[in-house]
Amino acid sequence: MSRIAYFGPVGTFTEQAARTFTTAQDELVAADTIPQALNAVRRGAADAACVPVENSVEGAVPATLDSLAVGEPLIGVAEALLPVHFSILTRDDVTEIRTVASHPHALAQVQQWLAENLPGARAVAAGSTAAAAVAVQAGEFDAAVTAPVAVEHYPLKVLATGVADVPDARTRFLLMRKPPVAVPEPTGADRTSLVAAAVNRTGALAELLTELATRGINLTRLDARPNKQNFGEYRFFIDFEGHAAEPRIADALAALRRRCDVRFLGSFARADGVPATIDPVARNEDFTEAAAWVAAVQRGETA
Amino acid sequence: MSRIAYFGPVGTFTEQAARTFTTAQDELVAADTIPQALNAVRRGAADAACVPVENSVEGAVPATLDSLAVGEPLIGVAEALLPVHFSILTRDDVTEIRTVASHPHALAQVQQWLAENLPGARAVAAGSTAAAAVAVQAGEFDAAVTAPVAVEHYPLKVLATGVADVPDARTRFLLMRKPPVAVPEPTGADRTSLVAAAVNRTGALAELLTELATRGINLTRLDARPNKQNFGEYRFFIDFEGHAAEPRIADALAALRRRCDVRFLGSFARADGVPATIDPVARNEDFTEAAAWVAAVQRGETA
Repeated sequence: MSRIAYFGPVGTFTEQAARTFTTAQDELVAADTIPQALNAVRRGAADAACVPVENSVEGAVPATLDSLAVGEPLIGVAEALLPVHFSILTRDDVTEIRTVASHPHALAQVQQWLAENLPGARAVAAGSTAAAAVAVQAGEFDAAVTAPVAVEHYPLKVLATGVADVPDARTRFLLMRKPPVAVPEPTGADRTSLVAAAVNRTGALAELLTELATRGINLTRLDARPNKQNFGEYRFFIDFEGHAAEPRIADALAALRRRCDVRFLGSFARADGVPATIDPVARNEDFTEAAAWVAAVQRGETA
Repeated sequence: MSRIAYFGPVGTFTEQAARTFTTAQDELVAADTIPQALNAVRRGAADAACVPVENSVEGAVPATLDSLAVGEPLIGVAEALLPVHFSILTRDDVTEIRTVASHPHALAQVQQWLAENLPGARAVAAGSTAAAAVAVQAGEFDAAVTAPVAVEHYPLKVLATGVADVPDARTRFLLMRKPPVAVPEPTGADRTSLVAAAVNRTGALAELLTELATRGINLTRLDARPNKQNFGEYRFFIDFEGHAAEPRIADALAALRRRCDVRFLGSFARADGVPATIDPVARNEDFTEAAAWVAAVQRGETA
């Protein structure tokens, strides 16, 4: 049995993502904030933490990236991808919806739907989508905009599901553990994630990306986040195809390590299952053969 | 006299930024959305548009980047940098603050302040910071979280100013015009902005950044935004030091143009006045001297 911390409360999208990582024996523990979920793992109060990392509409989740870049290192061991569509929950006794409560970000993502379907309702900010459901249950508001999973926790009626102004919005989540971890086996459809604190110098980012490009490694995401210590300096969160167990990735990681302060955030199977594209000269066997040739040259056996 | 469209309504941060670009003779026109402000310039209904482009806490403003990448091209001619701190406005007759209204994003940025200073107040979502002020004026709510400029438009009492959970948060704004425009003169502290639609191929981004790096050009920001047509493909919004009138920048722009679909978003003075760092081999005179030498070689005059 494992204890999995997640950015709560219960009944949110992150709980829904955390469930994809767990079995019935595991215990899910809600944390108030993303840093608190990660710190529970750092101090041993939880075995793993589930946190949102990227949304296809809003982009990166700053609190997650910033918390992973500093403090005790954590390593990603699995990812999940959830469609971001909401349910509108109400009570049985409500006959007219005059107030709709939710977290401000959730309200922002269903603004258009509310205008079209509940034009008379007033939007009210709540601390989370789940807190809005609690308030509706208590009779404070008429309806709540929530994650689909919320209806399993609160005895409310589903007025609508699949509600989203942007139909194919999705959020990516990571399961983070404290090293030493069992690194997942390569699957051929993996992602490796890291954060690099390159010096603020002309060409520094180009050099890092060239280390990846010359080894035939395809980027999947790059986010520049301000380094809070020095305004105008950035940390680069770099995701790319492949697994640290593969020679081209191991070789690139070593090259980045020589160039700058780099922190490994994990190699794990991609939730979307997209296989890595590998340059014809960067296959595992190309690296193995080339290393064997160099060793033979060093021994004077070949030329 | 110019007509300047901005992402409204009146009394918002973007109006405050728009005012930094205008004189008393100019007319400010509020638009409901960022695309509408930009489209007013495209169809000639306004001479320029003021839009937010980047926030130091939240990152890039997706609606602005996405709208600048497609449709009729627009060119940035000036930028402004505003500290993001809010005012809390109330009515004279309010004795106890039970409700505080604002745009969901503004509420999110003062959550901590509200918890500490108005713990009994309920947060209510409004369509904009200015709409919240209107509702307070009408007696619907007790207080509004607004841009500092709002108090000039609404007869409300200032309960607090300089309110911000993150004290040094700031937002950068651009003034966009339709070509042909008068490109601002280089100042030595300029920024050039562009969007590049590189092909989804290993090394494509590294190659683009290397074109800049080898010419001694220092990046100031890089944002990857999903290309809406093909999920998993990105457009790169690249900002760097220098001005298109300078040889190293002109040379780099031509190199990018040869490599991919690139759109120029302007060269203008940086609002923070930070002068460009220029590599010792990439000064204007280095490029001029090298071009003169090549021409002389071509004429057979020198070797």
